[in-house]
Amino acid sequence: MTNKSAVAEKLGSYLEKYQTCRAHTWVLCEPLEQDDYNLQAIAETSPIKWHLAHTTWFFETFILAKLEDNFKPFHPAFHHLFNSYYNGVGKPFIRCNRHLLSRPTVDTVYSYREYVDEKIKNLLKHNSKLSDHQREWLLFRLALGIHHEQQHQELILTDLKYNFFQNPLLPRYQTKIPKINHNITNPPLRFIEFPGGKTTIGYEDKGFSFDNEKPHHEISLPSFSFANRLVLNHEYLEFIEDKGYQKPGLWLSDGWESICRSGINKPLYWFQKNHEWYEYTLYGSMPLSLESPVCHISYYEADAYARWAGHRLPTEQEWEFVAKRYSHLVDGSPHPPYHPLPQINNYEINHLFNHGWQWTLSAYLPYPKFKPFIDEVGEYNGKFMCNQMVLRGGSCLTPHDHIRPTYRNFFYPKDRWQMTGIRLAS
Amino acid sequence: MTNKSAVAEKLGSYLEKYQTCRAHTWVLCEPLEQDDYNLQAIAETSPIKWHLAHTTWFFETFILAKLEDNFKPFHPAFHHLFNSYYNGVGKPFIRCNRHLLSRPTVDTVYSYREYVDEKIKNLLKHNSKLSDHQREWLLFRLALGIHHEQQHQELILTDLKYNFFQNPLLPRYQTKIPKINHNITNPPLRFIEFPGGKTTIGYEDKGFSFDNEKPHHEISLPSFSFANRLVLNHEYLEFIEDKGYQKPGLWLSDGWESICRSGINKPLYWFQKNHEWYEYTLYGSMPLSLESPVCHISYYEADAYARWAGHRLPTEQEWEFVAKRYSHLVDGSPHPPYHPLPQINNYEINHLFNHGWQWTLSAYLPYPKFKPFIDEVGEYNGKFMCNQMVLRGGSCLTPHDHIRPTYRNFFYPKDRWQMTGIRLAS
Amino acid sequence: MTNKSAVAEKLGSYLEKYQTCRAHTWVLCEPLEQDDYNLQAIAETSPIKWHLAHTTWFFETFILAKLEDNFKPFHPAFHHLFNSYYNGVGKPFIRCNRHLLSRPTVDTVYSYREYVDEKIKNLLKHNSKLSDHQREWLLFRLALGIHHEQQHQELILTDLKYNFFQNPLLPRYQTKIPKINHNITNPPLRFIEFPGGKTTIGYEDKGFSFDNEKPHHEISLPSFSFANRLVLNHEYLEFIEDKGYQKPGLWLSDGWESICRSGINKPLYWFQKNHEWYEYTLYGSMPLSLESPVCHISYYEADAYARWAGHRLPTEQEWEFVAKRYSHLVDGSPHPPYHPLPQINNYEINHLFNHGWQWTLSAYLPYPKFKPFIDEVGEYNGKFMCNQMVLRGGSCLTPHDHIRPTYRNFFYPKDRWQMTGIRLAS
Amino acid sequence: MTNKSAVAEKLGSYLEKYQTCRAHTWVLCEPLEQDDYNLQAIAETSPIKWHLAHTTWFFETFILAKLEDNFKPFHPAFHHLFNSYYNGVGKPFIRCNRHLLSRPTVDTVYSYREYVDEKIKNLLKHNSKLSDHQREWLLFRLALGIHHEQQHQELILTDLKYNFFQNPLLPRYQTKIPKINHNITNPPLRFIEFPGGKTTIGYEDKGFSFDNEKPHHEISLPSFSFANRLVLNHEYLEFIEDKGYQKPGLWLSDGWESICRSGINKPLYWFQKNHEWYEYTLYGSMPLSLESPVCHISYYEADAYARWAGHRLPTEQEWEFVAKRYSHLVDGSPHPPYHPLPQINNYEINHLFNHGWQWTLSAYLPYPKFKPFIDEVGEYNGKFMCNQMVLRGGSCLTPHDHIRPTYRNFFYPKDRWQMTGIRLAS
Repeated sequence: MTNKSAVAEKLGSYLEKYQTCRAHTWVLCEPLEQDDYNLQAIAETSPIKWHLAHTTWFFETFILAKLEDNFKPFHPAFHHLFNSYYNGVGKPFIRCNRHLLSRPTVDTVYSYREYVDEKIKNLLKHNSKLSDHQREWLLFRLALGIHHEQQHQELILTDLKYNFFQNPLLPRYQTKIPKINHNITNPPLRFIEFPGGKTTIGYEDKGFSFDNEKPHHEISLPSFSFANRLVLNHEYLEFIEDKGYQKPGLWLSDGWESICRSGINKPLYWFQKNHEWYEYTLYGSMPLSLESPVCHISYYEADAYARWAGHRLPTEQEWEFVAKRYSHLVDGSPHPPYHPLPQINNYEINHLFNHGWQWTLSAYLPYPKFKPFIDEVGEYNGKFMCNQMVLRGGSCLTPHDHIRPTYRNFFYPKDRWQMTGIRLAS
Repeated sequence: MTNKSAVAEKLGSYLEKYQTCRAHTWVLCEPLEQDDYNLQAIAETSPIKWHLAHTTWFFETFILAKLEDNFKPFHPAFHHLFNSYYNGVGKPFIRCNRHLLSRPTVDTVYSYREYVDEKIKNLLKHNSKLSDHQREWLLFRLALGIHHEQQHQELILTDLKYNFFQNPLLPRYQTKIPKINHNITNPPLRFIEFPGGKTTIGYEDKGFSFDNEKPHHEISLPSFSFANRLVLNHEYLEFIEDKGYQKPGLWLSDGWESICRSGINKPLYWFQKNHEWYEYTLYGSMPLSLESPVCHISYYEADAYARWAGHRLPTEQEWEFVAKRYSHLVDGSPHPPYHPLPQINNYEINHLFNHGWQWTLSAYLPYPKFKPFIDEVGEYNGKFMCNQMVLRGGSCLTPHDHIRPTYRNFFYPKDRWQMTGIRLAS
Repeated sequence: MTNKSAVAEKLGSYLEKYQTCRAHTWVLCEPLEQDDYNLQAIAETSPIKWHLAHTTWFFETFILAKLEDNFKPFHPAFHHLFNSYYNGVGKPFIRCNRHLLSRPTVDTVYSYREYVDEKIKNLLKHNSKLSDHQREWLLFRLALGIHHEQQHQELILTDLKYNFFQNPLLPRYQTKIPKINHNITNPPLRFIEFPGGKTTIGYEDKGFSFDNEKPHHEISLPSFSFANRLVLNHEYLEFIEDKGYQKPGLWLSDGWESICRSGINKPLYWFQKNHEWYEYTLYGSMPLSLESPVCHISYYEADAYARWAGHRLPTEQEWEFVAKRYSHLVDGSPHPPYHPLPQINNYEINHLFNHGWQWTLSAYLPYPKFKPFIDEVGEYNGKFMCNQMVLRGGSCLTPHDHIRPTYRNFFYPKDRWQMTGIRLAS
Repeated sequence: MTNKSAVAEKLGSYLEKYQTCRAHTWVLCEPLEQDDYNLQAIAETSPIKWHLAHTTWFFETFILAKLEDNFKPFHPAFHHLFNSYYNGVGKPFIRCNRHLLSRPTVDTVYSYREYVDEKIKNLLKHNSKLSDHQREWLLFRLALGIHHEQQHQELILTDLKYNFFQNPLLPRYQTKIPKINHNITNPPLRFIEFPGGKTTIGYEDKGFSFDNEKPHHEISLPSFSFANRLVLNHEYLEFIEDKGYQKPGLWLSDGWESICRSGINKPLYWFQKNHEWYEYTLYGSMPLSLESPVCHISYYEADAYARWAGHRLPTEQEWEFVAKRYSHLVDGSPHPPYHPLPQINNYEINHLFNHGWQWTLSAYLPYPKFKPFIDEVGEYNGKFMCNQMVLRGGSCLTPHDHIRPTYRNFFYPKDRWQMTGIRLAS
């Protein structure tokens, strides 16, 4: 009979999680032509090939290199090429030049993935050599690596979309266009009142969370009201038609300067043809779906819209307060669409998860007594706690088992290439 | 016997306040050559002449134009030239081009000041024509205009310093250099513990405050500790000598990118000559005073120093919590020095007010249920609530009757031309 | 009776030339307010104060410092501050920061001028201490310094015009506006044929010339035709109205990119008000004078206009060939207007000198066997022989005794702040 | 018996020329991985895939679209995507974004090539339908298209080299490294005297030439001397070791500014490892070959080197004068190396053709009475006649039957990605 510790058992069962995650990345790449793997229009939108290699490098560097005897990397230069921003383990390759890495080829990168997958499998199968402390450590790093890869799964889609959009051919990632139910009408915008009071914020469960979701702490939350759904495309169109983009009084000072300089006057992927509105999506160009939540807008646009509408954005604490009470609403449909489509919304509060990232009024800052992950992975989240805003809720491109009520995403106020939309509050 | 309302009486006594403030601006300009009035090295550092005109424009636009019958501006073009950022009342002149306004001349701008001062005097003297409501309104706008001019009094000095520094002659604003007591030693760095708990933040008194200090609201403050004094130059030198500027692990990601791009490796006005450290001050170049609080550093530098020292910056709530309990420490000396000099620090907590602005860990955001000032002056504070960090405490250049425990200043994380230093917390 | 050498005598008479030139600079500054002395909108347009000091520095550095025993500069830092681009004698102060030099003050700079003038006077009066070789050398450097100051006299006006133009008040340098004769009509555009053949180019006389005008050399000139006058404003208007600025086929590739990027669609100082054309001049804003030569256009614009008109620009050799045969046309009127006004043009070829600089088809390159001036002043012309185009003829702002048929001016193709116009050829 | 005109016969034989040229492009791409086809580090270095499509578009647009009845393009969007700079036929796709065109795929582009090749073949085979005038026209356009493709054959190599160099793996285009004869020593630098005199410049033969080589015209050429060979790497090393890059007096003003701003201090592909010099080549990284001609330097560097060496660069007229007298030296070896290697140089004048492009002192300007090609292809050369310098002689990457004594290449003074070297003159 066995003496195996609980952590050893858990570790054994983790192999499947690992393989499922890795396989999903592969599935996401199936629709691609080989030519599509190396596009990068701006520093932020990395090539798919780079995502494939970087997520693999993460497991190699933060697990294999630490636990393997006589560790030998797949290729000595990959440590430099596929390091994103971990200065603690070496000098990363210039971010905006990732598209210049024609070598290693796509084939070699897939071999790299197999090589590391095989090594991880062996490590998990033969974990009896490890101490319980090592197993705990390994369990955490595996979970981190998997959540990390899930983040890149979303980026693979958002980056590809942005890069494809630069091509006048407007390529389709998905050629089979989903049927859109044009009879769906969303419920009218309504605000739910919350009395506020003493409450707690942050992650307190046993499972995995990022360091930035902790520690769990008490706050005093003033009363507030929270919109029953996201702002829809037809509502955002009204803002445009009311010349919202031409009225400085609606905008933050930096936002006004930003749209003046860039000439922005509509969401990122919208365009007009013969006086009709269209939107570029992963299914190619489509007529604008008026009943879908607006997305691909900056914080500045979300904030200006809210002011125009006579409301404001919620704080991240307000959002989390609501989400924790409505978290059973996380949709479990296995195949998410690649674009927010009109859906029946019969809940009291709709669109909480996996419809569109929701800009909050909160700057991305450490929670009181925040501690970064220890060692090299301490660079994961903490060093970005400046100049960015918190987003909550995930989009339809976020893996469903990746999101949770305490999850804190963050982007710069000007960023628009993520699927970012508007929840109103008051 | 008189029936004069209380507000009418208050209004009468306000004339002296107004004149004192306006006269102080004039005193600040006394040491200048006429050539010095129009310098502008970067968009942020406006010419003195522009400050003189803009503060006058503020009274003319936001008071005279509203209350005078048959209002006629001093010059029709000034409304465009001396508007800083009030889009609601017209299109401001391009900020970075202010130094190109050789006309109106300095003489004309002084005439403009006298013209408006005379009109304001008349308005106050003959306020009996006004309704009580108008008097309330006038009282508020006058207070706002005076506080506004005080902010520009500080800017006159910080902008001039920055602009002078571009000249290899390193001109002196003050030619009489103060005696420095080299025997003063600051107390060792010590942290005072505060238990935290439920407390209130924000302005609740009857006097003047800016909109961003309100509303007064309750928060739940975790326990924290707070340094007994600011970080000193000799302490900051240790950070430099320990190669703090070369260690990415100490820096926020944006901060590291910022110092790499700009080559920053010391506070703004420091320089070395024959292996000795010097500092450019409003008294000209001086040997670095080791026992003075470090100043003219960015948020990035303050944050990196705190991490290097094993601590962190305080939140604005922590700072205010302490300051409200130690506000009797506001120094009342009539003639502030133009540079932080070593002082005897026998208080439990030192350097709270008027030594150096203290970067906090808090992004500049609206308080819960924040309401901007009404009408045109609503643009004063609210539209800057993005991308900036809160600073507290004032510097030796801040007028002493301008600062208070609830006062929220804000600058971009990269800004260094204000007198900004470091308070540590844990 | 005297044994004085010819060069000594010549030297004696040079004092008057020197003083006349220096006094003229002073006259040019008479209309200025003190506030006007330090404007600099772009690197190219230096402050007047800087021009006053730099021309003085030129005499101090290249004459006094070489000939005076125990030479002591007026101020040790001026060597750095007022060096324009002579790397051979030290590091020049950053060009685009000249407007940040509030010190030395205007008064000090005028004292500097007097100080150097006095020294030069003494040197010339007591030149008997010098050898004949030194006298020759001194004569050349004085001539160079005077011609150098004349170039800056023109720049004082063109730079001031550009800097004033940034001010919405559109200040007037000259308040007395000249009478414009609206009855003057220019002769129709006509082309004079020249058969070409063997000819010589470059300066061969005894007087002063710049190094770039030498050596005198033989060329083989193909036949060509040359326009009888400059292109006029009403002709250039036709180009605009024919959408010349919207037709890429008319433009050099770099020119097209340049106007697309900058949005240029008319000459520099033109603007429209109530559908009427106006032009900013040193007399302030004036209705566009249709019979005046067009000026303040780039090489790109001149070239595009010529193509649109079915012609081309002349080469500098063609221009010089014509000018040498028509050099008696140099106008000798003592008080030039500050703007090209309609004039009676009865010559076979008009507008050759002192109406507008004429862009040529020739890149600014060394003549065969070109030798730069010796020693430090070798940097005067030669190092700019790349990326610039030759202009000929001078403008109404060029001192009349400064221009000559062999004179080669040079600017970048994009430059427009000089008074630059169009001579057509075929 | 046949009546076929001479031009019809010539046309028939042109098919082979066409096919040979097109096949050579294909051969150049053989060593590539599919990942390599879409690299673009800077606007100037287009992706290989784009070159393949653009050269095809050239034949399609400028021949097929004009001569085919019911012409239908291969794909309607290609007209936009693969237009380089012909504004006359439509709006070109943004140059610096060419690397974002993952679609059409490489496979589709090869199909495009086959499609157009087939059409051209048919056109040539069935040219009996054409008038003699049309045949003349076709003959010219074919020749132009072939010479155009040859230019892109060179660009394919130079662009790939530049793009590969951004990858730290330093990929090899050619894996079989040629044997280098280390015993070869070049003859010492010697100058051949030419008396000059009346001569003619430009193309006058019957064959194909570009418009910019015409018309053939007479000039008067001063005497000059001309170096017997190109400057070698070991000679350029001396310039570096003598601190040539740190001495402003050696540099043109724009050149000095350019190297200061960019930090350039050696030829483009040179680097040091363990104190040894290496050079990146199409064979990968190799130890610097000291006896090879220096290449990949800017005009500024060539000019500064010449000044340092006490000489100057030749004018394009001098170069052509010599080349016409030594044109039998055009090397006919069928397989050029992909990098200039040491060779036996027994000629009186060496390295004239196909070793390295030679910067001349001449700005790229029209010859007297220059006429651009008629119709749309008039944009080919003329619109670039500004801001660029003429280069002569071709490099080892230039197809041997593409270069000739009158050939005028042109690049901006700062450009270094072409194989550009130094011929000295005096």
